[in-house]
Amino acid sequence: MVNTAIVGGSGYTGGELARIVCRHPNMTLAAMTSRQHPGVKVSKVHPFLQGFVDIRFDEKLNGASDCDLVFVATPYGASMDVIPGFLERGIRVVDLSGDYRLKDTAIYRKWYGIEHKDLENLKDAVYGIPELFGDAVAKSNLVANPGCYPTCALLGLAPLFLDGLVESKVIVDAKSGTSGAGMEPTKATHHPNCGANVAPYKVGSHRHTPEIQMGIEMLSGTEAEVVFTPHLVPIVRGILCTSYVRLKKDASHDDLYSVYEKYYSGKRFIRVDSMPSIPSVVGSNFCEIGYEFAGNGNVVVLSTVDNLVKGGAGQAVQNATVMFGMDESAGLDFPGLGV
Amino acid sequence: MVNTAIVGGSGYTGGELARIVCRHPNMTLAAMTSRQHPGVKVSKVHPFLQGFVDIRFDEKLNGASDCDLVFVATPYGASMDVIPGFLERGIRVVDLSGDYRLKDTAIYRKWYGIEHKDLENLKDAVYGIPELFGDAVAKSNLVANPGCYPTCALLGLAPLFLDGLVESKVIVDAKSGTSGAGMEPTKATHHPNCGANVAPYKVGSHRHTPEIQMGIEMLSGTEAEVVFTPHLVPIVRGILCTSYVRLKKDASHDDLYSVYEKYYSGKRFIRVDSMPSIPSVVGSNFCEIGYEFAGNGNVVVLSTVDNLVKGGAGQAVQNATVMFGMDESAGLDFPGLGV
Amino acid sequence: MVNTAIVGGSGYTGGELARIVCRHPNMTLAAMTSRQHPGVKVSKVHPFLQGFVDIRFDEKLNGASDCDLVFVATPYGASMDVIPGFLERGIRVVDLSGDYRLKDTAIYRKWYGIEHKDLENLKDAVYGIPELFGDAVAKSNLVANPGCYPTCALLGLAPLFLDGLVESKVIVDAKSGTSGAGMEPTKATHHPNCGANVAPYKVGSHRHTPEIQMGIEMLSGTEAEVVFTPHLVPIVRGILCTSYVRLKKDASHDDLYSVYEKYYSGKRFIRVDSMPSIPSVVGSNFCEIGYEFAGNGNVVVLSTVDNLVKGGAGQAVQNATVMFGMDESAGLDFPGLGV
Amino acid sequence: MVNTAIVGGSGYTGGELARIVCRHPNMTLAAMTSRQHPGVKVSKVHPFLQGFVDIRFDEKLNGASDCDLVFVATPYGASMDVIPGFLERGIRVVDLSGDYRLKDTAIYRKWYGIEHKDLENLKDAVYGIPELFGDAVAKSNLVANPGCYPTCALLGLAPLFLDGLVESKVIVDAKSGTSGAGMEPTKATHHPNCGANVAPYKVGSHRHTPEIQMGIEMLSGTEAEVVFTPHLVPIVRGILCTSYVRLKKDASHDDLYSVYEKYYSGKRFIRVDSMPSIPSVVGSNFCEIGYEFAGNGNVVVLSTVDNLVKGGAGQAVQNATVMFGMDESAGLDFPGLGV
Repeated sequence: MVNTAIVGGSGYTGGELARIVCRHPNMTLAAMTSRQHPGVKVSKVHPFLQGFVDIRFDEKLNGASDCDLVFVATPYGASMDVIPGFLERGIRVVDLSGDYRLKDTAIYRKWYGIEHKDLENLKDAVYGIPELFGDAVAKSNLVANPGCYPTCALLGLAPLFLDGLVESKVIVDAKSGTSGAGMEPTKATHHPNCGANVAPYKVGSHRHTPEIQMGIEMLSGTEAEVVFTPHLVPIVRGILCTSYVRLKKDASHDDLYSVYEKYYSGKRFIRVDSMPSIPSVVGSNFCEIGYEFAGNGNVVVLSTVDNLVKGGAGQAVQNATVMFGMDESAGLDFPGLGV
Repeated sequence: MVNTAIVGGSGYTGGELARIVCRHPNMTLAAMTSRQHPGVKVSKVHPFLQGFVDIRFDEKLNGASDCDLVFVATPYGASMDVIPGFLERGIRVVDLSGDYRLKDTAIYRKWYGIEHKDLENLKDAVYGIPELFGDAVAKSNLVANPGCYPTCALLGLAPLFLDGLVESKVIVDAKSGTSGAGMEPTKATHHPNCGANVAPYKVGSHRHTPEIQMGIEMLSGTEAEVVFTPHLVPIVRGILCTSYVRLKKDASHDDLYSVYEKYYSGKRFIRVDSMPSIPSVVGSNFCEIGYEFAGNGNVVVLSTVDNLVKGGAGQAVQNATVMFGMDESAGLDFPGLGV
Repeated sequence: MVNTAIVGGSGYTGGELARIVCRHPNMTLAAMTSRQHPGVKVSKVHPFLQGFVDIRFDEKLNGASDCDLVFVATPYGASMDVIPGFLERGIRVVDLSGDYRLKDTAIYRKWYGIEHKDLENLKDAVYGIPELFGDAVAKSNLVANPGCYPTCALLGLAPLFLDGLVESKVIVDAKSGTSGAGMEPTKATHHPNCGANVAPYKVGSHRHTPEIQMGIEMLSGTEAEVVFTPHLVPIVRGILCTSYVRLKKDASHDDLYSVYEKYYSGKRFIRVDSMPSIPSVVGSNFCEIGYEFAGNGNVVVLSTVDNLVKGGAGQAVQNATVMFGMDESAGLDFPGLGV
Repeated sequence: MVNTAIVGGSGYTGGELARIVCRHPNMTLAAMTSRQHPGVKVSKVHPFLQGFVDIRFDEKLNGASDCDLVFVATPYGASMDVIPGFLERGIRVVDLSGDYRLKDTAIYRKWYGIEHKDLENLKDAVYGIPELFGDAVAKSNLVANPGCYPTCALLGLAPLFLDGLVESKVIVDAKSGTSGAGMEPTKATHHPNCGANVAPYKVGSHRHTPEIQMGIEMLSGTEAEVVFTPHLVPIVRGILCTSYVRLKKDASHDDLYSVYEKYYSGKRFIRVDSMPSIPSVVGSNFCEIGYEFAGNGNVVVLSTVDNLVKGGAGQAVQNATVMFGMDESAGLDFPGLGV
């Protein structure tokens, strides 16, 4: 049994981590922390966990020395304050903030607006999409869990770049459910504003842009150009990425299918299908992928994930599972709601 | 031309008032005030009014003396601070807050939690549902514009009580779009909380309960018992009231239809139909009404309004129109969106 | 291991049954039938089951003799054609249609419009809400799985009737997600009609009315009067029942809580809480219950279930689990999505 | 007064045409036809028009000779059967089907799958976006009313192409409300399928693709490459187009603003704003446009319309208004709902 703790557990990601870990056959949940709600029952903040998670939030992780692994779900900037301490004590870490994703600290500074404070561990951090970088994850003590949008976009695009089939420019037009915006009410998530709307936001300036670019460059080995536009749609869970690339040379629909097969065959959480769907993946760790030709070598790649599961807590648990040498589907092998 | 102003114009009701008044053939909009946004262009706060309302918010109504009528859309408690001054200067008032609706100050104190400060004008204020109390509205200088829920419930039930057909107990189960909750983001209107939910709120304790009771007692002349449960549903505009009453003696579906005809024949904004619909009334000042028998003399009355129009700004304009002796449909004679 | 089959597996209930059974630690899924899709892969009709359910639909249940239990998810009328045969062969049955719920065949005829054809088994069928009628379920070979609305309403109201606290008249105002309407597109579920609407339907004439009445009479031992109004709301999963009863004599909020505790203590899937929520139960077998006073002895009872789980397939599996002497939470012990 | 008729009036577009024409100060509505509902009251099919449109559907347009203009809202293929007859009789036509949009009949055949039957009138038909091709519209007897997506995309992109600022490749990622799918229930518009989903459809094969391409080529004078992906989102009205182009040479945000000003100054229904919104345009004939830079010369253009108004019936009325020499805003000068 892997003994885990969740640092920063009062948000949606924290609740989702607890929901998954509490049923994981090989994990226990020793503690959850929250600066906002110390001493409060976890099930008070996440009422759906009543009867499943009966602990209270701690302010800090005192008994952390007993943990084998910590999920860090604090905001960016805060993660790099606590993670060095955990690693020093020999505790493995999956970080769900953005702090350890971008290898280039100048890019981090530009997009996050602050200076990186933990260059040493940043160097060793592994960007954790198990289907793509599983070997590195397995050997790592610190995994940077990817953003929801990059997970969805990169899984959809990876085989095309790994096989060198497409040009280096990608446009990712993403549509996300509102749970991705977090637990705090804002104008953007106020129902009269978003309930009958499709709202683009941070156009040309979202932090997941350099992360998608870095991912593609890791896959293709060459420089990439990424245009990324996220939109808020009136659903609660789920992301659809509609990604636009162009083939370097002619290929048939079947040719591309073979390439997807080549890289994803045997990957439990990937489904390459005619038409990916959000309801099929909601509540699950699955990513569904489809593609269509649009003339002149243009390929439209469609991919879906549940932003809180494969796009967040589920993938974090999957990373942890891989880090401890277990089958990557342990604790995550359930289908989506479908409807 | 009736020269009007809107006090407290930065909320949804204020925007809707401006939307209607700016196209009214017999009204002009001289000024709008907002304590939050003094000096700001109205169309900055209500972008859909660009090209229609080109004034800026004033902090106070300085030039009010030029106005014939003021719409007061401030929160309860604040309305009764400014209204006496307007009336003294001979300006007529339609108040959209709850301050002048309840005649009994003890009941006002109990449900609003504050003491009434303007007993003199409260005495003369007319509860403004033009279809039911139009004669009084026509003679009034101060109309208390009803709440959205009471408007919808009372219009649905009125003929049954006016004709003495039903017992004195009413259960009103109401479903409202989220625009009824106002412009300020809250936990209740945070999309992840309300977007895939039906949320009852203030069960047994909503301020519209005594207002519905007062309305029924005005119609029936006898004491009434009201149970009222509002729910937030994931739509932006519209209210459905499902109201439960019991017939005092046997009556057929046609009998009831005759009673509705008797009171509503010629009323432009009332449609008594087999099945009322929210989309039919959205964007309009219409109220649709239907009813079904449910055994043992139980009658289920269904009624729908757009909470911001007939349930708010539209009815306020209708009241103002009646106060100035115009045809009540002036400026409001447009159909709902339908779809 | 209990070997099961699903008859009529191409609808939402069939898919949900398969979703639950395929992960059940003590059940196997031997076969699924569909008259519409014989020979087709189950995962073609229910794509979210890819990798979980790899069988094809049979037209009929040929190898049924190998089954220990059959879930019958055909429409009413069709169930009573096939169930006698299963029972004769010693196969236990959980029927999800309405055929075996109403004990009074005259009432069945009145509300379902057809004659009952299997009086013998109807006599022995047990109305299967395990929390209320668990002992009978445990001994039964044929369980009539309740309707989604009756499950939600009765679980909310049961303790009040079991303890004789409330009068015999109940008004149930129910709001349901659209998955309750089934897989076939209709005008009612066409998004432009229902997506920004709250639509009452079958007012005074829904078949679940006599079922709720029968349930209350089983609990209270005396005749009951039920008014039931279902509404379609623009969510996919979940039901909220807002039920109105009146106390026979004074009682405090705590008094009622004690009564709920008395009957539901130790019941895994019941949560009596201040405010039940739909998102908390979606994807789970839980039922959340709350209540508020509304003056004059009126009590408003609020209850929520996922219509496809506790209101359908989940409860069916729970019944099957109880029928075979297992812990009732086996295979169902997972929390709702929460958000 | 311009006397009009609507041919094919039983769908959403027909209802919306009637909603606008019935209040138009310079138009009358003489007749509406429907093959499905001959003899039925228009307000039976479009209940929101009760009290506004009191005629019945005719099967054919018998008295068409009295009409000055006919709106043809039949499906493609059927329009070209009836339009030659109207034109012969000297009746002007606005055609809302796709029959007269594409000038190249080979392209028509390829994308619509049928042969064009009215080459003579096709030659003279004017593609009717009044803001871009208003002079031609004013002189025309037959206007091809554009598709909803092309209207939204082209209005957003036009100034950039008219001024030769951008390269010839455009990617249009469009999100549409479900009313765009028409009145007939389908799997795609079944609420359980679409209510919590974002569904791409006809990827690479939607008929509006060549129409957008033709529009851009008319504006730019050179060949264009268009990739177009429509998505169904769970809202009823409204379209957002997110369009991707690349600048030929460096330009500032203000430079582009000047270009938009140059072409759209004085255009009543165009708003070039920081961030276009769907709620701002719903119920109105407005198109809102915004744009952002996304690095490397990439520009993301955002544009919104109400698919049934500016994207359909509203623009049709605007075209008719221009054809008869009236101010283009006549009968259409009302703001969107805003919320």
